[in-house]
Amino acid sequence: MSVETPEKSYPVTPRNRVKRLHERGAYDREAVHAVLDSALLCHVAYVIDGQPFCTPTMHWREGDWLYWHGSSASRMLRHLKAGTPVCLTVSHLDGLVLARSGFHHSANYRSVMCFGKARVVDDPEEKRKALKGVVERFYPGRTAQLRPDQPQEVKATMVIGMPIAEASVKLRAAQVGDDEEDFALPVWAGVIPVTTVIGKPETSPHVPSGVSIPEHLALYDEGRPLDDVLIEAQALYERHGG
Amino acid sequence: MSVETPEKSYPVTPRNRVKRLHERGAYDREAVHAVLDSALLCHVAYVIDGQPFCTPTMHWREGDWLYWHGSSASRMLRHLKAGTPVCLTVSHLDGLVLARSGFHHSANYRSVMCFGKARVVDDPEEKRKALKGVVERFYPGRTAQLRPDQPQEVKATMVIGMPIAEASVKLRAAQVGDDEEDFALPVWAGVIPVTTVIGKPETSPHVPSGVSIPEHLALYDEGRPLDDVLIEAQALYERHGG
Repeated sequence: MSVETPEKSYPVTPRNRVKRLHERGAYDREAVHAVLDSALLCHVAYVIDGQPFCTPTMHWREGDWLYWHGSSASRMLRHLKAGTPVCLTVSHLDGLVLARSGFHHSANYRSVMCFGKARVVDDPEEKRKALKGVVERFYPGRTAQLRPDQPQEVKATMVIGMPIAEASVKLRAAQVGDDEEDFALPVWAGVIPVTTVIGKPETSPHVPSGVSIPEHLALYDEGRPLDDVLIEAQALYERHGG
Repeated sequence: MSVETPEKSYPVTPRNRVKRLHERGAYDREAVHAVLDSALLCHVAYVIDGQPFCTPTMHWREGDWLYWHGSSASRMLRHLKAGTPVCLTVSHLDGLVLARSGFHHSANYRSVMCFGKARVVDDPEEKRKALKGVVERFYPGRTAQLRPDQPQEVKATMVIGMPIAEASVKLRAAQVGDDEEDFALPVWAGVIPVTTVIGKPETSPHVPSGVSIPEHLALYDEGRPLDDVLIEAQALYERHGG
């Protein structure tokens, strides 16, 4: 959270410059953070001996840092230890775009690619804070109700942190771009929106009877778009100081 | 589609072996194809000068081949021309898993990582078939209604094909795995499902009045899970010979 007078935008370099359809690109922090914060799932690309890997994982953000975690034994995390370059991408599918020509079929989406060098979070205090963050960022207020982490759990978990060196947002949020000469064709065209929504909570059979869904999960309201919930959760998390 | 007596499973090598929580892993074609076919969006990882990139794109499948496409000018596609190694990953988020400890918080998901070497589809007949496939696979029956692709559109589009050399599925589809000694804690735990659903179609303002949503889009029924629609579309596509 301790970004002193941050620049409004991330730097633009040959690596992150949006080359195709650059009118769809953005580099400002607000746009980058909005795409990152409205998702729980990201994809991390890294290289081992020339071979690219693309691993899905949960991410969370503290200022200009991205975090993800996993088992201390995982292949991805063992290799990221060394500070190898990483590209962390978050994408949302928002709609299917159907045109009168094959060529103009498309999709509405929001995506962000973040570049940086990842490092293991091994400072005990930073790691403790990060492991609190991964729960608290998604479920603000929850960690106070949980039993404390046990030392062997902290040891078995590896946390990776990456300062965002460069980032770029790319998105499409528009109606179909049919050619004018195709407008009169008697074929339906338009956008079919898709949304990821919250379902009905399924209580674990091991929860004592009488324990109901807590107030801190009220934002996970059935039918609500996940994006909205996650943006709200991040705002609450930041407001309460993480 | 022309896979002669395919093996039931993709080969397992050090590259695709699921190392962590291997009870969550699978390599059989049916499981791999099920995850691939229920998504429109994938992430492609590739390496340029040692730097990993993770690019979101649409993919589609023909037998053991994966295809994606884009502008002939795109950075990703220009570099994939050379036959560089690629990891194409598809992930679905199915639920948030909330436990009585930070450690057992998790997510329900289905993911597949596919490894192979990508190549440009430049044979005119294969490219024509692929460009039909990218529409027809998602909207079976639609290409017959569209105006034909124009030569400059085909030229401006690059299609990449990759035979799946190795693949592995990893998933979690379970209730929370709380420790037995935490069962009595008076804290709610369970799964909050998330689902990506079809919304209400938005007709382009340039569609002539009187043209309604065609029968071939009936499967994109409002409120239906996108996964189910895409699985059904792929089955229809395969049944009608692509």
